Amino acid sequence: MDNQEIRNDFPMLIKHPHFIYFDNAATTQKPQSVIDALTNYYENDNFNVHRSVYSAAERTTQMFEACREKVAQFINAKDNKSIIFTAGTTQGINQVANGYYKYHLKKDDEIVVSIAEHHSNLLPWQNLAKQNGAKLKFIDINNNGTLNLNSAKKVITDNTKLVSITAVSNVLGTINNLAALIEIAHQHNADVLIDAAQAAPEIKIDVQKLNPEWLAFSGHKMLAPTGIGILYGKKELLAKMNPTQLGGEMIEHVDKNDFKAKDIPYRLEAGTPNVEGVIGLSKAIDYLENIGMNNIENICKNLGQYLYDQLSKTDGISVYGPKQRQTGIVSFNIDKIHPHDAATYLDFNHIAVRAGQHCAEPLTNKLGVNATLRASMYFYNNKHECDKLVQKIIEMRSFFNGA
Amino acid sequence: MDNQEIRNDFPMLIKHPHFIYFDNAATTQKPQSVIDALTNYYENDNFNVHRSVYSAAERTTQMFEACREKVAQFINAKDNKSIIFTAGTTQGINQVANGYYKYHLKKDDEIVVSIAEHHSNLLPWQNLAKQNGAKLKFIDINNNGTLNLNSAKKVITDNTKLVSITAVSNVLGTINNLAALIEIAHQHNADVLIDAAQAAPEIKIDVQKLNPEWLAFSGHKMLAPTGIGILYGKKELLAKMNPTQLGGEMIEHVDKNDFKAKDIPYRLEAGTPNVEGVIGLSKAIDYLENIGMNNIENICKNLGQYLYDQLSKTDGISVYGPKQRQTGIVSFNIDKIHPHDAATYLDFNHIAVRAGQHCAEPLTNKLGVNATLRASMYFYNNKHECDKLVQKIIEMRSFFNGA
Repeated sequence: MDNQEIRNDFPMLIKHPHFIYFDNAATTQKPQSVIDALTNYYENDNFNVHRSVYSAAERTTQMFEACREKVAQFINAKDNKSIIFTAGTTQGINQVANGYYKYHLKKDDEIVVSIAEHHSNLLPWQNLAKQNGAKLKFIDINNNGTLNLNSAKKVITDNTKLVSITAVSNVLGTINNLAALIEIAHQHNADVLIDAAQAAPEIKIDVQKLNPEWLAFSGHKMLAPTGIGILYGKKELLAKMNPTQLGGEMIEHVDKNDFKAKDIPYRLEAGTPNVEGVIGLSKAIDYLENIGMNNIENICKNLGQYLYDQLSKTDGISVYGPKQRQTGIVSFNIDKIHPHDAATYLDFNHIAVRAGQHCAEPLTNKLGVNATLRASMYFYNNKHECDKLVQKIIEMRSFFNGA
Repeated sequence: MDNQEIRNDFPMLIKHPHFIYFDNAATTQKPQSVIDALTNYYENDNFNVHRSVYSAAERTTQMFEACREKVAQFINAKDNKSIIFTAGTTQGINQVANGYYKYHLKKDDEIVVSIAEHHSNLLPWQNLAKQNGAKLKFIDINNNGTLNLNSAKKVITDNTKLVSITAVSNVLGTINNLAALIEIAHQHNADVLIDAAQAAPEIKIDVQKLNPEWLAFSGHKMLAPTGIGILYGKKELLAKMNPTQLGGEMIEHVDKNDFKAKDIPYRLEAGTPNVEGVIGLSKAIDYLENIGMNNIENICKNLGQYLYDQLSKTDGISVYGPKQRQTGIVSFNIDKIHPHDAATYLDFNHIAVRAGQHCAEPLTNKLGVNATLRASMYFYNNKHECDKLVQKIIEMRSFFNGA
């Protein structure tokens, strides 16, 4: 499929042809097939799951559970019992912190993250370290923004119980060398959690090959609705996890003072789940797999490289991260123009980029800046849009600086 | 609006005219206006909230925050900072247990619930009582299923720190006398949490008049999507609540080892929220308020009374709860026919009712039964459907028993 064919599947892009959406790391647009699946759900299949004996609700339950199987295949999990539906990456990571490591970390145990984490993969561990008396340690990045594996080798020790790391930096767009990092961690018997919020949309993930203990991602950054996410966990760890929420759907029996929980995954999914979120995620995965994850990765990487190259050769622009691009995320600053002013100027010209710290304040501090501009592209974006962005930046410099 | 006019607003009811949906206590159908709002969101407003400087995302943020104000008005909250978006009632109650009372209950403090709670308003308190050494105590019900206020007076003492109670029994359809109960609780300086999952869809709630400390409900039982709910809390309590999830969107500043949280409500809403859920909830409230909550309460109560009367005068049927009906929920059993067999028979006849313990096992135990059938009606149902149900039950008895 060429770019125009792809764009024709996205109502937002058809209805707003002059709008350039470069904020895909925040959330992605939805294809018609996902929107139609939701409408069809409301018109024909809107029933609660797991609870009812009537056939309509049984059918919805089957659709719901088929999505669990689809997600398992999407990340090549051995068993669909390893797939827990969450409200998003943030909930997934918090669930691992509060449901598992809270009960498995003691004083002086170490939690290791990188300096380039999103706050959702930093704050839960700061909090847990304080609660349990554990140490929070940081893997550094190289000057070009890539993960420093020598730092990882020094920081990860036999006291390290968990290495929690993003697969893709949401600021720099780098793909971390997870295979090498997981090997180091496992040599020290440390578990590994992968924050795949930015990776799952762009890169084929294979949990059997990578072999992390945990992996979390969100639907809304990969064409599905908000409010739905996935936590993958190895079954033997999930079996030892305490539910962080208690309620309906997760129990075998309840009396006045005690309850007997169901087996995984249901034990970890209290309450009515986000059924339409799951239905939407299922259709989103269909769409992504139809395009092909390898194709998506290539399109995004090529767009990232193209924009990086164009920005790099433009006067007065600093681009962050390595020259060799790996994803569609490009962060930069424009000389003498505050990122917020630049984003506002671009907004007047119908270009949506982010300005700020991108929920990764320790990283922006490390880069020595208060904020950056971030253009994050997905497979429906194109080089014409990159050119337009660069052209508007050149105009902006002239406008602000009289350059 | 008459019943047919109302039904014409619901695509599920139009498309499936011979299907009788009597499982509204599990989840409700969605009006066209809610479905259209979601489609419109995906086509025009699908941006992440609170984070971006571009105008499209600003507009979405305004829509999102306008819903907070709309919810505040819907339950007559003084301040929209009291409105926390959750994934549903279950999350709301767990958040209060794990974010507040976990830090405010000590040994021998008492938590009081009723024997008629949904598991989501029982298990979190069982768990907390065990963790903190607190006592979990139960208010009994009268023989007719209504809350026993004399029992409440005995059970609630000066050691009681929290009374957590449903407004409407999801099995018996009774409305608890909250005004009287809250008065008793407040006389003992005990806080009150209202589980309004079944009440918010049917009854006008006024938190200023009722004066509970907390109130939780779900969108999907009141025409909105799943995955979105509301936790109301008094501001002074929310201000002392610990976030149960940490991540993006909730912080002012982060460094490597610490963070400074934002003020309420954002501090308690980590991560990307269910934006389309909020948009859908907003339209659902518009729809409900256009019909009028008083009208909705009357329609549901009258339907409940009609079905109760018809079932009561049919041979071989035991109906649970008081003669004077207050909502559209009616639980019953059919002599010599197991509820699951009955529900299956009705399913063959295109009637959807629930069979089981309805996530309220202590109550079904109290009623002395293993399970019940439950018909739960909403304002789009009608007496013709009730007649059809009764007719099919009579046929069923003849079929199973040769009666």
